Amino acid sequence: MESPVVRVGVIGGGFVGAALVQLLCDPTRSEALVDAATATVELVGVAVRDVAKPRPGIGLGLLTTDVDALIASDLDVLVEVAGGIEPARSYVESALKRGISVVTANKALMAESGTQLAQLAHEHGADLFYEAAVGGAIPILRALRSSLAGERITRVMGIVNGTTNYILTKMTTEGSDYGEALREAQALGYAEADPSADVEAFDAAAKVQILSTLAFGTRLGGEEIAREGITGVRIVDVDFAARMGYVIKLVGVAERVGETGISRRVHPAMIPVGHPLASVNGAMNAVFVEGVKSGPLMWLGQGAGGESTATAVLGDVLDAARNRISGRHDVPFTGDRSLHYVPASELSSPFYLSVDVLDRPGVLAEVASVFGRHDVSIQSMDQSGFGDEARLAFLTHEALSADVEATVKELIALESVESVGACIRVIDEGVT
Amino acid sequence: MESPVVRVGVIGGGFVGAALVQLLCDPTRSEALVDAATATVELVGVAVRDVAKPRPGIGLGLLTTDVDALIASDLDVLVEVAGGIEPARSYVESALKRGISVVTANKALMAESGTQLAQLAHEHGADLFYEAAVGGAIPILRALRSSLAGERITRVMGIVNGTTNYILTKMTTEGSDYGEALREAQALGYAEADPSADVEAFDAAAKVQILSTLAFGTRLGGEEIAREGITGVRIVDVDFAARMGYVIKLVGVAERVGETGISRRVHPAMIPVGHPLASVNGAMNAVFVEGVKSGPLMWLGQGAGGESTATAVLGDVLDAARNRISGRHDVPFTGDRSLHYVPASELSSPFYLSVDVLDRPGVLAEVASVFGRHDVSIQSMDQSGFGDEARLAFLTHEALSADVEATVKELIALESVESVGACIRVIDEGVT
Repeated sequence: MESPVVRVGVIGGGFVGAALVQLLCDPTRSEALVDAATATVELVGVAVRDVAKPRPGIGLGLLTTDVDALIASDLDVLVEVAGGIEPARSYVESALKRGISVVTANKALMAESGTQLAQLAHEHGADLFYEAAVGGAIPILRALRSSLAGERITRVMGIVNGTTNYILTKMTTEGSDYGEALREAQALGYAEADPSADVEAFDAAAKVQILSTLAFGTRLGGEEIAREGITGVRIVDVDFAARMGYVIKLVGVAERVGETGISRRVHPAMIPVGHPLASVNGAMNAVFVEGVKSGPLMWLGQGAGGESTATAVLGDVLDAARNRISGRHDVPFTGDRSLHYVPASELSSPFYLSVDVLDRPGVLAEVASVFGRHDVSIQSMDQSGFGDEARLAFLTHEALSADVEATVKELIALESVESVGACIRVIDEGVT
Repeated sequence: MESPVVRVGVIGGGFVGAALVQLLCDPTRSEALVDAATATVELVGVAVRDVAKPRPGIGLGLLTTDVDALIASDLDVLVEVAGGIEPARSYVESALKRGISVVTANKALMAESGTQLAQLAHEHGADLFYEAAVGGAIPILRALRSSLAGERITRVMGIVNGTTNYILTKMTTEGSDYGEALREAQALGYAEADPSADVEAFDAAAKVQILSTLAFGTRLGGEEIAREGITGVRIVDVDFAARMGYVIKLVGVAERVGETGISRRVHPAMIPVGHPLASVNGAMNAVFVEGVKSGPLMWLGQGAGGESTATAVLGDVLDAARNRISGRHDVPFTGDRSLHYVPASELSSPFYLSVDVLDRPGVLAEVASVFGRHDVSIQSMDQSGFGDEARLAFLTHEALSADVEATVKELIALESVESVGACIRVIDEGVT
């Protein structure tokens, strides 16, 4: 039987776009692609800014600069791997309004406009898939959407930024300080010349938006994610964490708080060495999901890279093709189940604090009394001296963030306290 | 809008069946279930052997002993969580022939008859889903079927039996010997009174059948899986592995060998401590997948337990319901892409061998010369003496299994060799 044809257009000829074209055009894969798509996937064209630029792996005949003509050429599926908010959003909207299914790897666009775009897709009988927007090759979004659709998820916690994980891994395993590790990441191409999107956790926050939407039905493009990057993590904190049986990771978290609350945040956290996330090193990504009945689940894989990301895009293309052939589309997540956002200040957890003080009698008692006044109980303390100063490292019992913040504020005001070097949340639940 | 109804019947009222019924009847989940199923999921009945037996969580009005009547009651989806080959297979066939989609957790049935049942489902326009048959709550099968459908997978390697992983973890972390660890697993309910299905790796072999089918299109119920259990793993081997930077795990492997070869096997293996599978401990399961473009991916979660397994069954039920509503079914894997099975004896890898010898001059040279005669090159050696004997532990360079087997055979025949205690394959590739 002759298989039906699904026409695919691609916007973007960068690493991901080129890798996708190679996957679609690889003759050794064509039989498997037809099986998986239940159709022949025909690549119609690849829209790029500059046709003259050499793009190994993309046939010249496929290249075009005319995105509108590509969208208008009777497409079934549009792949958007160009990135950025505009003009990507306009192209995606234009395609969806024509009933063309869209596959995108664009986390910034989805975090900002995902809910509206999903609604638009639904109205026009099209699919909007974005597996590659979180965790590169890791098929976590489809799992949340489909396999875990009936489960009550309590927490999604991920290492979703490879650059910061590379830097923190370097600091942990080689004792590099933050600046050295960052420069090495830049030299290797893991970090941009301006690394702020990664190290200030904007990238991870967009991914938390997307994960939170699929796990809890929160709206994309809603309230901001509480965000703290890794620029304040010092080698002394990494060393202290190791001595206490922890590693410091930048985690993105979306979790239930009580019956109707949701906390969404990105911050460095101390993770027990036995936790599955603790051994996720280098540029690897991982997402750890806890459900009421499923128990803990974790997905691990390469979070970046053109080829691995392209496999996630391809999975979406095949899914969209199957839907196309059977004349259906996936229903988007249902937004806003009357959940409210709980600010980070209202959360409780153990904390690690490092305080530099003048090394003189009575200082520890003075510092400890500040903790006590704010109901922050100390689990353990570690002191190291250097010259006239001493560094006190505290691990608290579970304490309210607002109380810890108040403690820090009062500590800084003390004449005997030089500085509060770090205040890092501790993730303390084990996994059986 | 009134949502359509999908009628679901369940065969089996054990742990998984009861947990599934609770999930389907939980009022706090009903809204989410309707969203995910695009329909109201109506539980029609639960077929059990003995209606009188107390089954907490299953309403008495749902129970029946008449499976045929349940199947005949205009079902959309039949869930089979009773286990065993017969009568489960007859019930599944009967349902599929009526065009009823089937969701099963029955790994033995799928390993034996999966290809025929999938074909039967396809002929009658029904789905056959079995996510819970491998890795409990871990949604690995849907990922292989869908997200990775366009990827060329090179290897699937999993810790897919919780009982043996519990025993090996006990031996590794607490120095228990095999017998102690097994008895403890039995006392905790992780191992059966007759543990052979687990410790002799029959259970893991069935799961390798299923994984291999989805990853490579091999036929279910085809040739046997090469199978070696954990009964021969001794605490001395575990200790030696630790000293060399490895842990011993029972792994199920399905991998490409060359262009058209497939190796499928279950055996204890030495895994480098830095490998993601090495830190999968206790009763946890994990599946590690390597693809040409995706790079390494890993799924981790609870491999057993009624509630966690029920979440996987529920995911399948919702998927089958969505398909039902949109009038389509998933196309089953395409079997037999002219692959041939490569026997384990034709594979190469490094090996660990432990040899007990009489402690007298010249023995090491004699033993080493046997290795050399069979082209097995030694990477490192570790000797420990006890009384008149000595134990030699060898780590070889990559060697052909058949050559290693021949080496073992000749070693055993030596007058100075008391016994060859262990011969364990080493998985030596790292993950970046």
